[in-house]
Amino acid sequence: MAQVNRSGRSKVVVVGAGFGGLSVMKTLGNKSVDVLLVDRNNYHGFWPLLYQVATGGLDSASIAYPIRGLIRPYKNVDFQLGNVTGVDYANKKLIVENSDPIDYDYLVFAAGSAQFYFGNDALAEKTFSMKDVDEAEQIRNQVLTAFEKANHESDPQKRKALMTIAIVGGGPTGVELAGAYAELISHDFRKDFPNLDMKEASVVMIEAMATILLPFSTPGKTEANDLQRSVQSTLEKKGVKIMLSKPVKAVEDGAVLFNDGDTLPAETVIWAAGVRGALLGDKIDIKLQRGARVPVNEFLQLEDHPEVFVIGDMAYLEGFKWGDRTMAYPMLAQVAIQMGKQAAQNIIVLASGSSGGGLTKFSYYDKGSMAVVGRGAAIVTASKPVKIKLGQNALTKIPAWMMWLGVHVMFLEGWRNRWVSIFNWTWNTFNKDRGTRVLTGTRDAKTQKMEISN
Amino acid sequence: MAQVNRSGRSKVVVVGAGFGGLSVMKTLGNKSVDVLLVDRNNYHGFWPLLYQVATGGLDSASIAYPIRGLIRPYKNVDFQLGNVTGVDYANKKLIVENSDPIDYDYLVFAAGSAQFYFGNDALAEKTFSMKDVDEAEQIRNQVLTAFEKANHESDPQKRKALMTIAIVGGGPTGVELAGAYAELISHDFRKDFPNLDMKEASVVMIEAMATILLPFSTPGKTEANDLQRSVQSTLEKKGVKIMLSKPVKAVEDGAVLFNDGDTLPAETVIWAAGVRGALLGDKIDIKLQRGARVPVNEFLQLEDHPEVFVIGDMAYLEGFKWGDRTMAYPMLAQVAIQMGKQAAQNIIVLASGSSGGGLTKFSYYDKGSMAVVGRGAAIVTASKPVKIKLGQNALTKIPAWMMWLGVHVMFLEGWRNRWVSIFNWTWNTFNKDRGTRVLTGTRDAKTQKMEISN
Repeated sequence: MAQVNRSGRSKVVVVGAGFGGLSVMKTLGNKSVDVLLVDRNNYHGFWPLLYQVATGGLDSASIAYPIRGLIRPYKNVDFQLGNVTGVDYANKKLIVENSDPIDYDYLVFAAGSAQFYFGNDALAEKTFSMKDVDEAEQIRNQVLTAFEKANHESDPQKRKALMTIAIVGGGPTGVELAGAYAELISHDFRKDFPNLDMKEASVVMIEAMATILLPFSTPGKTEANDLQRSVQSTLEKKGVKIMLSKPVKAVEDGAVLFNDGDTLPAETVIWAAGVRGALLGDKIDIKLQRGARVPVNEFLQLEDHPEVFVIGDMAYLEGFKWGDRTMAYPMLAQVAIQMGKQAAQNIIVLASGSSGGGLTKFSYYDKGSMAVVGRGAAIVTASKPVKIKLGQNALTKIPAWMMWLGVHVMFLEGWRNRWVSIFNWTWNTFNKDRGTRVLTGTRDAKTQKMEISN
Repeated sequence: MAQVNRSGRSKVVVVGAGFGGLSVMKTLGNKSVDVLLVDRNNYHGFWPLLYQVATGGLDSASIAYPIRGLIRPYKNVDFQLGNVTGVDYANKKLIVENSDPIDYDYLVFAAGSAQFYFGNDALAEKTFSMKDVDEAEQIRNQVLTAFEKANHESDPQKRKALMTIAIVGGGPTGVELAGAYAELISHDFRKDFPNLDMKEASVVMIEAMATILLPFSTPGKTEANDLQRSVQSTLEKKGVKIMLSKPVKAVEDGAVLFNDGDTLPAETVIWAAGVRGALLGDKIDIKLQRGARVPVNEFLQLEDHPEVFVIGDMAYLEGFKWGDRTMAYPMLAQVAIQMGKQAAQNIIVLASGSSGGGLTKFSYYDKGSMAVVGRGAAIVTASKPVKIKLGQNALTKIPAWMMWLGVHVMFLEGWRNRWVSIFNWTWNTFNKDRGTRVLTGTRDAKTQKMEISN
């Protein structure tokens, strides 16, 4: 039933329904190939706003759109819910958990990225990460539960640890989270927990390097630039404590241990340091490149398997210009979207019978300021004033906020989500009250047992 | 820290933040007692709309409101997140999981109701129930996952079982769920799963008695009345299969077994038959009455512990007039709300130093048609035409829908939820597209492993 498979048509299997995978799907939509989209979730997640779910600003449904709703316009596209565990190149079969292998003529890996723990996987168990809606909800529940426990904890030390949110990593995700948690505490928790002294609460951002937002460094420069300094000072004004040049040695229950011997008591430790290509990369018998990304040729194919393409965060391809350096294309939505389109076009060429001639090399059209706005705005959402400094021209506060809103809403799949999100953002911005700070999914509903994590 | 406890003031502990518990809290708000609200969730759930979460019509956040937002106006009210496991009457201490016991001067049990399995607790493991947001999400995820599996299941028998939703119980909850699932399948799934033949899908409502909606029977009559017949025919028009006088013997993985030897293959079995007082009732050393409810006197006190009150679904008190019979007050929001107010007023009398004189007996003001509209409308939401038949006067379709909307929205706590809900309802009604049918919380995000339930 599942697999659309009209006789004689090539079958393209796309793994991952992120920005890259959807770009492939849309480019091949209603073309003369059959497409099967495979994802372990049944929704497309708008990850740039995931931190809003982790901080109670948006509910999951607002940033998750059912994949089946997205493929409806395309008669030649089907979806399968499944967890891909490997590939059999010789027989052109994709291995999927709890399912028969899936045949393919052409395969596209677009599974995105995962947290990287620098080989210290114990960190993965002791920290929270934020890679999808479920993880974001886990973090939200952890923070809400920790403050509820603090509310009836008489030991000052324990109480302070419960009220401390440590974020390891000063990249965009860390900045977004730190800013949003600082606001959650100063705006919502102050009113929600009148019996707690919010001076005991703290949001700590931990960065191993000498500056935050390393990806935004000035090419060739090591010291912090204006953008990095302005974001840092804005976060500090919000009450975020920023630790620089402070590498983490280990995380134990209730504490972060540093290389220099210091210790930070914290019941909530979020890992936002280091990202790598999707874990699926480890299971497809390819020697990975830096960042555990899969090396591809300029046509985005695997060198030894021209019928297999890899795109987006998962793919390693050099050619991105940064100052006078050329490096691998960064893990950005824009790169994934453009790679997806290119891979799809090359698949159409091959499916039409070409032996490889007529393929087009990937070339990245850097939307520059637009990308900066999007990315910059993503940073900025955590701290409005910076938005003004970030803008190319002197923007007043409200237009900057609207620009940010506009850029993100444009990307959001599905009008329902757009309007619900606009409503929630506006509500949160003007009422400073996050309505979705509810603890769901924390109990095994069958056994009625609470999972209080400690 | 946690427990507000100004010297000399009586401390009232309220277990449960449902309609009853909130009614107690509001009545005692800013009075000269200290109140601690205890609930195992940090939100108040608007259960009349819970079936909308189970069927993808609303997201959890829309029917769940943070308790701390509700207690803000009252300086003398605090909240503790905790799972109550017992009570020590002699020392006036409430026993709470993972926490020190909580002292009380006055105690109110308002923990609501639970599913009743007629002593056959194996049923609890093999079926889904819908008593809170987490359970409703589990059901939603189960149905979505089952249809995803059906989409690539080639065995017709297995596929049909995956596409069959069996609902045991023809009460209001069963009716709501059956109607909403019939709509989900005919409106959304038909478009979402173009490769599935929806003629293979079925929603089956199973009732042991000779009629559905037993609570709405005409006093003294056994045969179905107009309301019951009209709801049944409306459900059948929507494609719901109704089995009457069909007691369930057991539920196995993938099948319902009946007393008469018949078998119904179904991968999703929802238990909506029989309700009892909250399980907490089993742990408070009181001999329970019918429906596992806690017997109270007319002042809503435990006979042997006048400082302990029990209200709402948990309480057993006779005095409800039904035709010429007098029975226990039914498990209705209105009863819980009015009992909560009465209990709170009696507590104020006792706290003011009365030895028991001056207490007021509970008397129920039956809002009659209003209650019927609320309850009736709750049924009706699953099947609009009935709404018209249900109304006391001949209502046209839209006004009836708006009345239903109004009644429910009036109850919903928190303006944010009201507007998001209005938006979602309107969207679903006019677009026939449930935007929130996303599978979340189905994987252990840490291990990246999918839980495919089978």
